[in-house]
Amino acid sequence: MAVYTKVSPDDVAIFLRAYDIGTLTELVGIKQGIQNTNYLLRTTKGKYILTLYEQRNVREEDLPFFLGLMEHLAQKGVACPLPIRPMQGELVSRLCGCPAAIIGFLVGKTLGRITPEDCEGLGHAMADMHVASADFPLRRANTLGLPDWERLLAACKSRADEVRAGLGALLQTLPRGVIHADLFPDNVFTENNLSYDMFDFYFACNDFLAYDLAICLNAWCFEYNTSFNVTKARALISGYTRVRPLCPLEIDALPVLARGAAMRFLLTRLYDWLHQVPDALVKPKDPLEYLSRLHFHQMVTDVASYGISA
Amino acid sequence: MAVYTKVSPDDVAIFLRAYDIGTLTELVGIKQGIQNTNYLLRTTKGKYILTLYEQRNVREEDLPFFLGLMEHLAQKGVACPLPIRPMQGELVSRLCGCPAAIIGFLVGKTLGRITPEDCEGLGHAMADMHVASADFPLRRANTLGLPDWERLLAACKSRADEVRAGLGALLQTLPRGVIHADLFPDNVFTENNLSYDMFDFYFACNDFLAYDLAICLNAWCFEYNTSFNVTKARALISGYTRVRPLCPLEIDALPVLARGAAMRFLLTRLYDWLHQVPDALVKPKDPLEYLSRLHFHQMVTDVASYGISA
Repeated sequence: MAVYTKVSPDDVAIFLRAYDIGTLTELVGIKQGIQNTNYLLRTTKGKYILTLYEQRNVREEDLPFFLGLMEHLAQKGVACPLPIRPMQGELVSRLCGCPAAIIGFLVGKTLGRITPEDCEGLGHAMADMHVASADFPLRRANTLGLPDWERLLAACKSRADEVRAGLGALLQTLPRGVIHADLFPDNVFTENNLSYDMFDFYFACNDFLAYDLAICLNAWCFEYNTSFNVTKARALISGYTRVRPLCPLEIDALPVLARGAAMRFLLTRLYDWLHQVPDALVKPKDPLEYLSRLHFHQMVTDVASYGISA
Repeated sequence: MAVYTKVSPDDVAIFLRAYDIGTLTELVGIKQGIQNTNYLLRTTKGKYILTLYEQRNVREEDLPFFLGLMEHLAQKGVACPLPIRPMQGELVSRLCGCPAAIIGFLVGKTLGRITPEDCEGLGHAMADMHVASADFPLRRANTLGLPDWERLLAACKSRADEVRAGLGALLQTLPRGVIHADLFPDNVFTENNLSYDMFDFYFACNDFLAYDLAICLNAWCFEYNTSFNVTKARALISGYTRVRPLCPLEIDALPVLARGAAMRFLLTRLYDWLHQVPDALVKPKDPLEYLSRLHFHQMVTDVASYGISA
C-alpha cells in the first residue's frame, strides 16, 4: 500500500482550516498511486483527495506546473480533477513537513476490460487536454525523454540479462566517442595524396562515432551539390572500416544519421544566410546544397545506397 | 579575409618569449578560417600557426578540450596539427586580450578535385582519430545536435522562404504542447463509459503532442501484452482526431514515436525491476511486456498498421 507518509486526523483537521471545504469527518489512506501518498478526505462539504508528495519521487519545484496544469485544464472543462485553492496562498502547501495539496474527488472508477469505445473516449479526452493546454503558461521538460534513455540504460545494461537472456545485447546503443563534427574538404590538407591531415577541431565533441562518417558522406560524396557518388561513399567507408569496423547498429543507422547531418548543415547555413552582419568578413555558404542532400537521404531505404552490402 | 583581431610583430615577438620556438622572422595574416583569426608565423626555428580565438565564435571554456584533443591525437600519430606548449603553463594563453595558441604548421594543401582515393584516405584518417581519442579524458557536448535544431529552426522559419519559396513549409517540426506522458488505463476513471477522467499528471511535460498518442497506442491497444488490436488503435485515433486532427508529419512519425514510447517504458520498468528497494511498497511492473511491444513497432513499415489510412 502506497501510504508513505502517515498523517493523523488531528493534523488534517488543522490543515483544513486554511481551506473553505468544511471540517474533517473521515480520513482513509488509499492504496492506489505509486509515487505519492493519497488519502480520501471526507468533510462536512464533500469528498476530496489529500496528496502528500514524496520528495524522493517528485521534485517540489515541479508541483506548481502539475497542479497549475490540472487547475487550468479542469477550469476549461477537461475531464480531470480540480485542485482546491486554500483561502490564501498557493495550490501547494505543507503538511507534516511534506508538500501537500487537496484535489477534487473523481466519482468514476477504473475501467474493467477495455473496449474500442473506451479507446475512442480516451482519445477524445486526451485531445481535449492537448487543445486546452495550448495557452497554459508554465513549461516543464520531459525528464524521461530521448536524452535520458542512455542514462537509464547505462544503469541497467550489465544486469539486463537477469530479466531475460540476451536483453542486454538487444539494448545496444550506437558507439560514442570524440568526433570532429565538421570534417569538410576545406578542413583537410593533403601532401601529394599520401597523408590526409585534419584540422579545425573547433566543433569537436562527444557524439555517435558514425555521425562523423555521416557528415563526411554529405561533405565528400556529392558531385557539385546534386548527385551522390556511391563510389566515393564506398571508398570512404572502406577506408574507415579498415581501421575501425562498423557494428550492425551503426550500419543500420547510417541513413538516418546522414539525414540528420544534412539537416544540421542545412539549418546552420540557413541561419547564417538569414543572419548576415553588415561588416561580415566571410560570405555565408548556400544552404540549398544541403536541402538537396537532405532530399537524397530521405529517399534512401537501404544502406546499399551508400555502397554498403548489408 | 578572416583576420578579426590585428596583432603587430612586436606583440607577437614578446608573446613568443614564453615558447621555445625561436624568435619571430615573419608574420602574415591568413584568409582561411571562418571562426578565428590565424597568422602564419615564421621563426628562426620553423613555421607555425598563431590562432586568436574570437570570443563571439568560440567559448573560451571549450579551448582546453579542442587543444587538448589535438595534442592527444597528434601525440598518438593521428594526422593533425600539434599545439605547441609554452615553456610554462597551458596550451591556451592570451595575446592582445584574446585567447591565443600556437599550433604546428601543416605542410600539405587543400585538395583539388576529390577522388574516391581521397575519400578512402580521409575515411582512414577519421577512423584513426576515433580510435585514438577513445582514451581522451575531457568531454564536450555537441552544441549543434538534435536538441539544438529546433532553436535554429525557430530563428529561421519565418524567413526561410526568402531563400527558396516553400522552404519554411518543408522545415516543419512536430507540433509540441503539454502532454500527460503516462496516460495508462490506471490513470483514467470512467463513469459508466460516459466520461473518461484523466488523473495523475505527475509526468506531464512539454513534448510532441503525438507522443502522448503513441504512449496510448502502447498502453491501451495491446491484448494481454502481445497482440496489437488495430480496432482499438483506430478507435483511439478516431476519438482523438475528432477534436484535434493530426498533421501529415504526425501521422508519418507515429511508428517511430510508438517505438520510442515502448523503449521509454521498457527502460523505466527495467530500471525499477533491477533497482528494487527491500522495503518497497509497490511491486514493479514487468519490463518484458514492453519488449514485445517494441518488437511490434520495429516491424511496422506503414501507418496502416495503426489503423490509419495514409
